[in-house]
Amino acid sequence: MTPDGTTQLIVIAGYPTDHIQGFAEYEAAIAARGANALYLSMQVAPGRFAGFLDGARHVENLAGLVLTIPHKVAGFAAAAAHDEAAKLAGSANMLRPTGAGWHAGNCDGAGFVLAARAAGMTMRGQHVQLLGAGGAGRAVSMAIAAEAPAAIMVHDTDAARAAALVGDVMRHFPAVSAAVGLGDSSLLVNCTPAGMGQDETLPCDESLIPRDGMVFDIVNRVDTPLLRAAQACGCRTEYGYAMMVAEVPLILDWMLRDA
Amino acid sequence: MTPDGTTQLIVIAGYPTDHIQGFAEYEAAIAARGANALYLSMQVAPGRFAGFLDGARHVENLAGLVLTIPHKVAGFAAAAAHDEAAKLAGSANMLRPTGAGWHAGNCDGAGFVLAARAAGMTMRGQHVQLLGAGGAGRAVSMAIAAEAPAAIMVHDTDAARAAALVGDVMRHFPAVSAAVGLGDSSLLVNCTPAGMGQDETLPCDESLIPRDGMVFDIVNRVDTPLLRAAQACGCRTEYGYAMMVAEVPLILDWMLRDA
Repeated sequence: MTPDGTTQLIVIAGYPTDHIQGFAEYEAAIAARGANALYLSMQVAPGRFAGFLDGARHVENLAGLVLTIPHKVAGFAAAAAHDEAAKLAGSANMLRPTGAGWHAGNCDGAGFVLAARAAGMTMRGQHVQLLGAGGAGRAVSMAIAAEAPAAIMVHDTDAARAAALVGDVMRHFPAVSAAVGLGDSSLLVNCTPAGMGQDETLPCDESLIPRDGMVFDIVNRVDTPLLRAAQACGCRTEYGYAMMVAEVPLILDWMLRDA
Repeated sequence: MTPDGTTQLIVIAGYPTDHIQGFAEYEAAIAARGANALYLSMQVAPGRFAGFLDGARHVENLAGLVLTIPHKVAGFAAAAAHDEAAKLAGSANMLRPTGAGWHAGNCDGAGFVLAARAAGMTMRGQHVQLLGAGGAGRAVSMAIAAEAPAAIMVHDTDAARAAALVGDVMRHFPAVSAAVGLGDSSLLVNCTPAGMGQDETLPCDESLIPRDGMVFDIVNRVDTPLLRAAQACGCRTEYGYAMMVAEVPLILDWMLRDA
């Protein structure tokens, strides 16, 4: 769609942005609801994100920001108000401007659960191995915990970050067994950037892939090394594209005025 | 065109923006040169413009800003470096980010001259009445002065602003007679916002329209009150659309990397 002088802007901010997908999906969803809005990307380095936010709030036709790696935790911290899902996750995948500052939301967990369910992955009773305790990993862990799995094990190369997430899971979902570590699982979820773009690394040792189990790689790439290895192990798999698509209507509902 | 994660952004910043036209023209010109770029608008209030600029410089895929009312003089003042045309005008209609701050350019004068010539308006030897000594009026005045008119008379409701512009014309073009005031002319140029959008006011008394002369209204609206009155007086007329179209390739050449 060709924009005009009243087009609302939905800006995905990340670093880098060249791997970002979903533009056609947003454009189609915006057109389907008859909104005058445009989805575009801005590449902002981590050290510049706070300054970028200070300037972006002056753009009156900015509907909101979608945040991707590495801005989700910084976006949460910069916000003046937070939805419950963002509070639980301690991260934000969306911000919208208000007169009192940025309002933070997070639909990564909801998008993950919608996509996992659609792929036939039941979370109740499963033993979940979660890799990556960053912004997306936090949101996904909390959403999985709300689905009553038997246990969640969290691994991150930053051990303190993994421990903090496990503490939060235990506090909010005391019925779920949670621990820091790597081990056997029935559902493996990758929330690290391993496999993004041209990256050919696995997020964990291949031996941790649950044979004939379930693997969800939230990286938006159909053939990450993890997905290829999981398919070779007979796993049911799903990946970031389905999660991204599930989030499109959630994000548009949350941001667009007069939608 | 649907953007992607590497699309360069060309942002027109104004207040308000709802009257802005030219989106389809930019889109076509960008497509014709095979560039991956997007032209979009941001509405930024005058008091917020400095803060907006501070944030915008952190957007790595921002090719540049096109400035329209009321940001042209503020944009010039905020820049760290200036093209000659911007220096002459004391205003900027375009900014591009550099490692050392904003670089200011101005092609309003060049766009005006191209459009006026194409409409058969010769400036040499004419008696020019210029209305409006703001950012666009400054650029247009300097470009007209370079075409060797007999005289330029400048009017602005802010008399000091008109006097400053006249002083600059005299300093840079000593062969041109320049004065503050309103009077008879053979070429009348409107650089005030009168007639923009739904506005139905004339920028000057109807008696000042040069019968069978030339009137250029830089407002981008085909039927401003001034244009209607000028056509009723038998004038040759041209308006902002032609100037805007003439500026599209100048702006794209100036901003797009790898174009």
